[in-house]
Amino acid sequence: MLPKGNFPKKVYINGEILSSENAKISVFDRGFLFGDGIYEVMMQLENGIFYKKAHLDRLQNNLNKIGIDYCVKKIDEELDDLLLASNLTDESCLIYMQVTRGIAPRKHSYPQNVPASVMMYALPYSLPVINPKHMKSILTPDFRWHRCDIKSISLLGNVMTNEAAISANTGEATLVRDGLISEGSHSNIFFVKDEAVITHPANEHILDGITRRIILGLCKDLDIPIIEKAVAQKDIEQMDEAFFTGTTTQVASIAQLGQHIFYKNEETGKVTRKLQTAFSKLRNLDTSMIDL
Amino acid sequence: MLPKGNFPKKVYINGEILSSENAKISVFDRGFLFGDGIYEVMMQLENGIFYKKAHLDRLQNNLNKIGIDYCVKKIDEELDDLLLASNLTDESCLIYMQVTRGIAPRKHSYPQNVPASVMMYALPYSLPVINPKHMKSILTPDFRWHRCDIKSISLLGNVMTNEAAISANTGEATLVRDGLISEGSHSNIFFVKDEAVITHPANEHILDGITRRIILGLCKDLDIPIIEKAVAQKDIEQMDEAFFTGTTTQVASIAQLGQHIFYKNEETGKVTRKLQTAFSKLRNLDTSMIDL
Repeated sequence: MLPKGNFPKKVYINGEILSSENAKISVFDRGFLFGDGIYEVMMQLENGIFYKKAHLDRLQNNLNKIGIDYCVKKIDEELDDLLLASNLTDESCLIYMQVTRGIAPRKHSYPQNVPASVMMYALPYSLPVINPKHMKSILTPDFRWHRCDIKSISLLGNVMTNEAAISANTGEATLVRDGLISEGSHSNIFFVKDEAVITHPANEHILDGITRRIILGLCKDLDIPIIEKAVAQKDIEQMDEAFFTGTTTQVASIAQLGQHIFYKNEETGKVTRKLQTAFSKLRNLDTSMIDL
Repeated sequence: MLPKGNFPKKVYINGEILSSENAKISVFDRGFLFGDGIYEVMMQLENGIFYKKAHLDRLQNNLNKIGIDYCVKKIDEELDDLLLASNLTDESCLIYMQVTRGIAPRKHSYPQNVPASVMMYALPYSLPVINPKHMKSILTPDFRWHRCDIKSISLLGNVMTNEAAISANTGEATLVRDGLISEGSHSNIFFVKDEAVITHPANEHILDGITRRIILGLCKDLDIPIIEKAVAQKDIEQMDEAFFTGTTTQVASIAQLGQHIFYKNEETGKVTRKLQTAFSKLRNLDTSMIDL
């Protein structure tokens, strides 16, 4: 029995489409035993799946990084069936996908000749044109691993830091590693200083978000200078603006980060607003096949 | 369908005992979505479950650390039923236990009022009196998180480093963080220098292994000096002996660590041998209720 909650109507597991109630996986799946898998989240909006190719390419790239032998082309083929079964063809929805290393007796090293497991579902979900939130965020130590570039389901570190944010009545936890701001528990973070946009470089300490990449592209289009450099925690108060990015977060203005208050009223910084507006227009286009 | 392999006969899931084939969990279990859970492995030997109380206490302690509301007393009560159903009452076997944060719609922060999920199984498994291996180990960067004291199922970092060891035809990966040796991918590591035993302190960079604690106790009994300090990678060649410890590893002599060869022949160091012998005698006792 599932508890009450907003579960999807249908779940795809390895070629079968099941009700959420019946969507079960072997306890010997390495996703359950070792967090040994990769996930993706993407949004279907008015004009198709937003940056679908970019998300699927990243999924493939991540699977390759950890040596899971699976070709994401198959997901792309099956997605239509899932959306149809979920009554979500052409509807606004969130698509969650997870590929794990498959089922084998528990042993750390990789099993041979075992097919990967694929699970995905679509959930009715709508996104505002512009995220209206004025976010507050705690600052908290980034005690996660040193391969945050891998979008892995071994997420306990993210889960614990996100819980700390919620417990503090804020919307996100901003992580600080060795005095430097890396990213949010489930979003990337950007700063604005003297009209330039500053964000952590895409190395092994952050996830290279699809929305992060889109924003960097928009900065180029809009002639906004980009500095890919980590901001020190001690320099937050020198920043003019800050915002989070993410697939469901979109571009979210940060009103307060740790003790520093960017805006006392419901303001949004000039550059943040410009990027929010430019970002909002992308959903009028078919972005599903764009390379990022 | 399960692939071929050494799966247990029975699996306990939330009060039910099922065949391995039918042992399935909801894909919405946070173990599968987030690696959000804690595990334990213990051995049943000739005189009962080896240090059962120590393992169950650690499980409880770890669940408390990540805020999973579950009392391990229940496991202790159900274990007999599982062993009986598995035809393993009083047989040599490995017992695997995993407690996850339960089933909820996917959202990082902790769900409220959701019962934890418990999965466990017993697998026929015998251990030699003394581990006869002369282990080789690679040295590899410790890129795991900074809460390795938590015995979490978010194990992708351990899995990747263990795979590197197996690919290099060695039995274990020894992890190096900031130039200091922390532990193995699924064991603790000890060195011997001038008859003293040296091992990493039990802080957030290693798992405080039950066998590690037993060995420290034996050192006290045998008047072997203990230094709880991380050994630098550059100092390995100055060490006289080295060994791994773990629940199934027991005490395993290390013949080669990285490029450094401790023994060319099938030798075992004097202190290692002394500890192996002392450790081997513990299984003649009922250790199941000993506090550690």
